[in-house]
Amino acid sequence: MQVAIVLYPGFTSLDVIGPYEVLGRLPDTEVVFVAERPGIVRNDLRGLSVDVAASLSDVPDPDVVLIGGGPGQTEQMSDGDLHEWLRTVDRTSAWTTSVCTGSLILAAAGVLDGRRATSHWAALEQLREFGVTPSDERVVIDGHYATAAGVSAGIDMALRLAGLQLGDDVAQTVQLIIEYAPEPPYDAGSLESAPADIVRSATERLSRRFPR
Amino acid sequence: MQVAIVLYPGFTSLDVIGPYEVLGRLPDTEVVFVAERPGIVRNDLRGLSVDVAASLSDVPDPDVVLIGGGPGQTEQMSDGDLHEWLRTVDRTSAWTTSVCTGSLILAAAGVLDGRRATSHWAALEQLREFGVTPSDERVVIDGHYATAAGVSAGIDMALRLAGLQLGDDVAQTVQLIIEYAPEPPYDAGSLESAPADIVRSATERLSRRFPR
Repeated sequence: MQVAIVLYPGFTSLDVIGPYEVLGRLPDTEVVFVAERPGIVRNDLRGLSVDVAASLSDVPDPDVVLIGGGPGQTEQMSDGDLHEWLRTVDRTSAWTTSVCTGSLILAAAGVLDGRRATSHWAALEQLREFGVTPSDERVVIDGHYATAAGVSAGIDMALRLAGLQLGDDVAQTVQLIIEYAPEPPYDAGSLESAPADIVRSATERLSRRFPR
Repeated sequence: MQVAIVLYPGFTSLDVIGPYEVLGRLPDTEVVFVAERPGIVRNDLRGLSVDVAASLSDVPDPDVVLIGGGPGQTEQMSDGDLHEWLRTVDRTSAWTTSVCTGSLILAAAGVLDGRRATSHWAALEQLREFGVTPSDERVVIDGHYATAAGVSAGIDMALRLAGLQLGDDVAQTVQLIIEYAPEPPYDAGSLESAPADIVRSATERLSRRFPR
């Protein structure tokens, strides 16, 4: 199985590295990072520089496609080579997937038309502009599309995909290898659970990116 | 605050990117990736190439030091420049920290002498060889040392540190921004919770690295 993970300038690193750590440990699976412009691709916090060797045309028919989010997502919303590639690989992929605001890119490319999908909580309603029904589930599976909520949700999505594709035993073995028995020190990871003042402060921090 | 994250060939990417995503979002915080040999550093699965600009001597007094684990850890157990740097920066750091088998490197460098610490479950008992008391807690804090269990546990550790260093509100805001409300699809992430056959298969997968 070949997994293609799309990087672009301003990507959020955990969006892609969470699922990478799961999918990269599946048997007989190759994961390739691809970019429209190969070379050094820097993340949103600008501290991480990834050297991406493969261009989009180097990876014409991956079994799984994954695109993450991050502030750089807003630069990837216009039609062009990336959207064309997404539409093409989606025709033959077993799974077309996203984490966080990566779903907005899939939606803008037109591949999620009429589907249910999720995204980062701050961006969720934007999916409607592209004819996609937003869902506040952490992982949404609709047809061969799997979308995850914000940043850390990609780990949960990748384990779900691993189970669906290769069986529960394989997925659970990877879960144990990456010791994924989370113990968040607070119950503040979702709009539903976070205290009101935390929701206000997080919304304010993200407001330049997601104006209301 | 300056955070130094050490990379070396054969590192496990989620070990470092999990905490990076948390610590990199703290106010007035700079995160620097450092390596004994700067340049391209490849991870254990060999699909991720990180371009590291800073050498150890470029970062002489970070406030927080973090070292992750991975199969490459076994090549970092001999005394040399990295161990010397770890001993030096540990004298002035607010926090010296590790994820997964990164704690074995800290232990081999001598900075965990007489302390309690954790590590990946498959490597935990090795800590005793270096005069460190193993603990099967997911995050262990002893003095100014914070150690996390395997791979994904670094996210929990970083949120704990964020709270201790900057207050619960700051930590919770970051937790909400990275939407860290985990929903693992299985309860198989620890030795205690995983079914016996999953423990056997994960132990076998890791047995070349951690012979018993």
